Amino acid sequence: MPDRLDSSTYRRLVREALAEDVGPGDVTTAAIVPADVRLSAAIVSNATCVIAGVDVAREAFALVDPAIEFIDLCSDGSICQPGDRVATVSGPAAGILTAERTALNFLQHLSGIATRAREFVEAAGGRLKVLDTRKTIPGLRALAKYAVVCGGGVNHRVGLYDGILIKDNHIAVAGGVAEAVRRVRATGTLLPIEVEASTLDEVDAALASGVDVVMLDNMDDETVRAAVREVDGRARVELSGGMTVDRVRRLAAAGADYVSIGAITHSAPAVDLSLCVIDG
Amino acid sequence: MPDRLDSSTYRRLVREALAEDVGPGDVTTAAIVPADVRLSAAIVSNATCVIAGVDVAREAFALVDPAIEFIDLCSDGSICQPGDRVATVSGPAAGILTAERTALNFLQHLSGIATRAREFVEAAGGRLKVLDTRKTIPGLRALAKYAVVCGGGVNHRVGLYDGILIKDNHIAVAGGVAEAVRRVRATGTLLPIEVEASTLDEVDAALASGVDVVMLDNMDDETVRAAVREVDGRARVELSGGMTVDRVRRLAAAGADYVSIGAITHSAPAVDLSLCVIDG
Amino acid sequence: MPDRLDSSTYRRLVREALAEDVGPGDVTTAAIVPADVRLSAAIVSNATCVIAGVDVAREAFALVDPAIEFIDLCSDGSICQPGDRVATVSGPAAGILTAERTALNFLQHLSGIATRAREFVEAAGGRLKVLDTRKTIPGLRALAKYAVVCGGGVNHRVGLYDGILIKDNHIAVAGGVAEAVRRVRATGTLLPIEVEASTLDEVDAALASGVDVVMLDNMDDETVRAAVREVDGRARVELSGGMTVDRVRRLAAAGADYVSIGAITHSAPAVDLSLCVIDG
Amino acid sequence: MPDRLDSSTYRRLVREALAEDVGPGDVTTAAIVPADVRLSAAIVSNATCVIAGVDVAREAFALVDPAIEFIDLCSDGSICQPGDRVATVSGPAAGILTAERTALNFLQHLSGIATRAREFVEAAGGRLKVLDTRKTIPGLRALAKYAVVCGGGVNHRVGLYDGILIKDNHIAVAGGVAEAVRRVRATGTLLPIEVEASTLDEVDAALASGVDVVMLDNMDDETVRAAVREVDGRARVELSGGMTVDRVRRLAAAGADYVSIGAITHSAPAVDLSLCVIDG
Amino acid sequence: MPDRLDSSTYRRLVREALAEDVGPGDVTTAAIVPADVRLSAAIVSNATCVIAGVDVAREAFALVDPAIEFIDLCSDGSICQPGDRVATVSGPAAGILTAERTALNFLQHLSGIATRAREFVEAAGGRLKVLDTRKTIPGLRALAKYAVVCGGGVNHRVGLYDGILIKDNHIAVAGGVAEAVRRVRATGTLLPIEVEASTLDEVDAALASGVDVVMLDNMDDETVRAAVREVDGRARVELSGGMTVDRVRRLAAAGADYVSIGAITHSAPAVDLSLCVIDG
Amino acid sequence: MPDRLDSSTYRRLVREALAEDVGPGDVTTAAIVPADVRLSAAIVSNATCVIAGVDVAREAFALVDPAIEFIDLCSDGSICQPGDRVATVSGPAAGILTAERTALNFLQHLSGIATRAREFVEAAGGRLKVLDTRKTIPGLRALAKYAVVCGGGVNHRVGLYDGILIKDNHIAVAGGVAEAVRRVRATGTLLPIEVEASTLDEVDAALASGVDVVMLDNMDDETVRAAVREVDGRARVELSGGMTVDRVRRLAAAGADYVSIGAITHSAPAVDLSLCVIDG
Repeated sequence: MPDRLDSSTYRRLVREALAEDVGPGDVTTAAIVPADVRLSAAIVSNATCVIAGVDVAREAFALVDPAIEFIDLCSDGSICQPGDRVATVSGPAAGILTAERTALNFLQHLSGIATRAREFVEAAGGRLKVLDTRKTIPGLRALAKYAVVCGGGVNHRVGLYDGILIKDNHIAVAGGVAEAVRRVRATGTLLPIEVEASTLDEVDAALASGVDVVMLDNMDDETVRAAVREVDGRARVELSGGMTVDRVRRLAAAGADYVSIGAITHSAPAVDLSLCVIDG
Repeated sequence: MPDRLDSSTYRRLVREALAEDVGPGDVTTAAIVPADVRLSAAIVSNATCVIAGVDVAREAFALVDPAIEFIDLCSDGSICQPGDRVATVSGPAAGILTAERTALNFLQHLSGIATRAREFVEAAGGRLKVLDTRKTIPGLRALAKYAVVCGGGVNHRVGLYDGILIKDNHIAVAGGVAEAVRRVRATGTLLPIEVEASTLDEVDAALASGVDVVMLDNMDDETVRAAVREVDGRARVELSGGMTVDRVRRLAAAGADYVSIGAITHSAPAVDLSLCVIDG
Repeated sequence: MPDRLDSSTYRRLVREALAEDVGPGDVTTAAIVPADVRLSAAIVSNATCVIAGVDVAREAFALVDPAIEFIDLCSDGSICQPGDRVATVSGPAAGILTAERTALNFLQHLSGIATRAREFVEAAGGRLKVLDTRKTIPGLRALAKYAVVCGGGVNHRVGLYDGILIKDNHIAVAGGVAEAVRRVRATGTLLPIEVEASTLDEVDAALASGVDVVMLDNMDDETVRAAVREVDGRARVELSGGMTVDRVRRLAAAGADYVSIGAITHSAPAVDLSLCVIDG
Repeated sequence: MPDRLDSSTYRRLVREALAEDVGPGDVTTAAIVPADVRLSAAIVSNATCVIAGVDVAREAFALVDPAIEFIDLCSDGSICQPGDRVATVSGPAAGILTAERTALNFLQHLSGIATRAREFVEAAGGRLKVLDTRKTIPGLRALAKYAVVCGGGVNHRVGLYDGILIKDNHIAVAGGVAEAVRRVRATGTLLPIEVEASTLDEVDAALASGVDVVMLDNMDDETVRAAVREVDGRARVELSGGMTVDRVRRLAAAGADYVSIGAITHSAPAVDLSLCVIDG
Repeated sequence: MPDRLDSSTYRRLVREALAEDVGPGDVTTAAIVPADVRLSAAIVSNATCVIAGVDVAREAFALVDPAIEFIDLCSDGSICQPGDRVATVSGPAAGILTAERTALNFLQHLSGIATRAREFVEAAGGRLKVLDTRKTIPGLRALAKYAVVCGGGVNHRVGLYDGILIKDNHIAVAGGVAEAVRRVRATGTLLPIEVEASTLDEVDAALASGVDVVMLDNMDDETVRAAVREVDGRARVELSGGMTVDRVRRLAAAGADYVSIGAITHSAPAVDLSLCVIDG
Repeated sequence: MPDRLDSSTYRRLVREALAEDVGPGDVTTAAIVPADVRLSAAIVSNATCVIAGVDVAREAFALVDPAIEFIDLCSDGSICQPGDRVATVSGPAAGILTAERTALNFLQHLSGIATRAREFVEAAGGRLKVLDTRKTIPGLRALAKYAVVCGGGVNHRVGLYDGILIKDNHIAVAGGVAEAVRRVRATGTLLPIEVEASTLDEVDAALASGVDVVMLDNMDDETVRAAVREVDGRARVELSGGMTVDRVRRLAAAGADYVSIGAITHSAPAVDLSLCVIDG
């Protein structure tokens, strides 16, 4: 699990999230909570989950009031059980109440992704690396990809710029896999070349072009197994399309290297977390 | 359903989403697709869903290349069946392929929220207004709240600034509902005052303070019904906490005015959409 | 008077104000004042005024040089007499001289608003709440609204998003008050509904629609009194349009709840403040 | 009067002003005004004034909805009488109503500055150039300085970077005018050197150092006249401090070159403008 | 040579460059050039060079005044001789004169990089691909890398995120090449792995770890040749460190794949270009 | 040499430079370097140079990890010999390696400008002030102008806003020097007026208009000497156009005041600097 998340990745996001939530001011808290009232509270998990984003939550409190002390009790990547405390916050009550929702919104979303990633990682049983995709919720990709790693997954290319992935539409434009790969090679790029294939013929074409990775896209189980045999170590193999936890478990031993799953980032339900006041 | 979504709400978000996806450049497309190749494609729904965010998708293509023509075939709030075309795009192939993922990422996420909202709205059967909450994915609140309206829901306060919601922690700090409400009134605010209550005693305290809305938080069905009888029209009533579609259906006729559901925005699965090239 | 002003409200504004004043550099100070010269100075009021914006002034010095020590001697909302010290600054002379004008520009403008607000609040004698409007100097609304509170006023809606105010043009488009209110109600909004009325008939129409607040716009004193009698507690009443200090004093006891005055924010003269070096 | 105002000066400001006013949306207009309703209206002056900022107002409407047609009937720097139309807008009613306040807030503030500048320019009767100062409302300096020119005034340095102005505190740090000027000269700067003087001795010291401009700061009328005689054309002379329209009229023929007045920009009351629907 | 440069890459940069040059206004042009004066001028090359950045120059004129017509006569990547016209501009004279310097500053810098790149590409004679490095002038990397391609070069990784390059300090921390490569492999990354080697032993260690690319760093010619023989096709080879045009020519046939040169981007002299008014 | 560089000048630039280099993350360092490994290293000069930008380099390390200790051993404006240490950094190895390139990119570029400036300053031998121009690399003007001062040069106007420079195209539009100067004077500006002249007749015309500075543009040596005699102290004289170090040495005693050289900022080669790990 990653040992750091760079604050420059999330500081602007937290600032914008606070801006959209607090706007011109937390009118309820401003009216009710005097500046000198202090509070201690814990972020508590109400479910079994993998935590991700503790430092992002910390930042939300710190940006609202640097006087709030935030102590993390779980680190990113660790597993919480219902009732476990993820962190405690103590300090000016007003700031804690104002920052609460923004902190939790980040933490529950990122932990949701980490938790989902881990389900797939466990299904893969170490025999397939679990990759994310570019199907992320807009604006949060860096955090989402970090959360995937917290859940034990591996990051596929971050965007369109750090990996070559030749998809069906590229192949159609080029008039074939061979020509598409040739055009990429002609740029002299140092990046690895991956090609999407949905039939065994396309797998053969990709192999003939000497690509680094073949993505088996939306194949049924039987075709997947045939394709892996066909590749026979001449390229790395990525499974993609319609992957459920059950199917990953079933295909884990098929001999592929990677499985990529969009749902980890685009459809992970939020983890149920809450902020509970700690008595005296 | 809303008849417009202001572009200033989403232009910056689309620009940032493109920046995180395209970064220094779509290396695959730049290598393979010449500038003069043109393409026509359709965004197709692979599920029954409520569409939201068509103009956001349009913006993604327009920002990448203003020469791309985007024709919407569904309007926000309309229902699509599997196989339905949501929109068509035609123009320079390179720009279409570069913008595709960003456009779909917005559209599948917002349509997911609208679809989820509508499930609850249908369960409520017109007897309860379905509200969203502030439990939104950070950075996307304005769009998420718009998607809720596309699904037939109603927006609760947008943030901490456009509504008074006195929660348990505020009450604890103030030393009681009466004092909390008094402090809010003392500011002279024109905003309506809502108080969270989790017991019948708290409902009574709220009513005694003359609040505008009482939120029945995490009560069981029986207590909800008792609380509604207790309120007896002296305030509007909002149900909140652990609301599922089934429970909303069950409580629809209980006499409350609103039900608020965080999961609509924090846990809506993405709708399955894809971009398909149109032949000829 | 408010007990805090969130730094996120003004940090960007102070940074931009410094940017527009200092630009590529304070050429005079850079040439004349060595880095090791220190200075002590006081911000002195040359008029009777209500102070607002002390922390904004502090920020201007802090952003130019964190080594400058700023000690506030007046808090926002307090009244200064000519010759009173508002704050002292001590530290590197260069930074103090560079930041001086920006700090004073904020402080003199915000204190001007607070001072103007207080004149109206005193005229209202506690019988009318004094509201600001959206007629603020662009870019400074949050600070202007804060200054109004420092002067004892109350904030009307911050913008177009946190309150419903149905004005004559809305009514004209809808074809009448009743239809306009109906359309707003149909959105399910939780916000209070205010309607502008300039005749007694319009007041009646607003009351018939059950609005929360009636704004009596540009009525003469006699009509105001008649309208208040007509409303008779069925809605809150706001006076608006052409309000001078004298007129507010005259109408204070007319039975209305609020008076709103654009001039507090759009035409408040700056308070005369200066930075005076402290000997020895 | 200036024949253009660069849009890059104000586009960001208008965008931010709209953001602070419209925020997540104009809830009243969204509820009441259908997208297909159109409106024609005029911006009407309710006072005698010098207009400034027509293009800024145009931008506010254009940013909200590019379909709004804005026709200016007055140009910046021209004089309007009560009842005169400054501009007309026509197009989608919703956008016009949403943009109205932001457009007017800019126009009434800038026209206020231009109007105030012109009062001083008329008092100076062409014998003194009327300068603005750096005492501007934060964030709006470029627009404020433009408005001063619309009123017939002349811009003093824009900020600390485009002019040398040696003030009393600089002189104190340097240990005298001569040394302060020497230090500035040593930088090799091409900028003109102005020195603040509040006594005749200080005027002499400035002249002895060969400065380009002497600022007579807070002198009484008699001392001003003596100082001008003393300078006797060896430098340009600027009057500053406590300048009212009457005093400028009185000192216009004293032989100075410039008079600078902070109140033009920091205390100009807004001009009364309104948006009136045009029938038929 | 690249057939497009995405405007989103440079629009912000051009806007900021204009802001730093024009600031509060081009005072000379505003004073002298009336708004209705028109001008036609040509951007002329005073040297033999490879052009890069034509669209960036176009943007500078367009941002200052969209009414300026810019016609490119050379495309990026083409070679100009002294006296050749790169582009013509015609339209409002004021805008042309204001934008001139910013447009030329971009064009002369980027063309300088392209010209320098081409010198190396010609020296390499098609036997080595000429790579850029991360040694770029801050803020301009995307444009600099584009200019390299215009000159016939190939882009090495854009930043620290789109390629693995294990340098001496990484190896020292890991305790050896083998362990460093193992740690990278353990992340599951799809990116190619490059290792820096400055001795033949280090080359062997890199090969033993199965890396994709070996960078021969600061080796003398003889060692380079020995290292290439040692690699013998088991990895791609990049030459780096102290590469001059002469040395690239000498090593072109040594059997390596790439040569990377920091000076192309960090020390390319500007191409001499000027804007000349076109008569009649 | 300047005794300070304001951090607000460079903080945003460093942040953007880090963003373009680090992007979504330094994948090599993240994989190899554990968070608890520490490193000490020195920035070493490999050439004789004038250092500029030490605080900018410091900022790069500080933004990546505030725990990195940066100790400067040379101050801006001082001269380094090959092997001299400019600064040391010690702290978390990961952050040091991630920030290294960005820090060096700034330092090597700015020191390159300072070094180039000093060559010209030495050639001028104190008899001519060496000015920079507006021919700077876009986005870095403030830093570039600072580096010029570090090298002993003097800053010409920063942009189009802080100096009047009437060039040939302005004169052509106005129809002559006299009219161009008259138009500038009519604005009442306090800025000095400089006119470009390329013949002795133009010098005469400029003098007749009483300008403050005459720029002798692209004249040969003989004409320069004649022009200086012609001016005879009636204006300051700036030499410009095609100035090499040799020519500056030759013309140093010609009697002009300034020489301006674009190449100092647009074509200064980077100084060779490297980061070397310090043993034990």
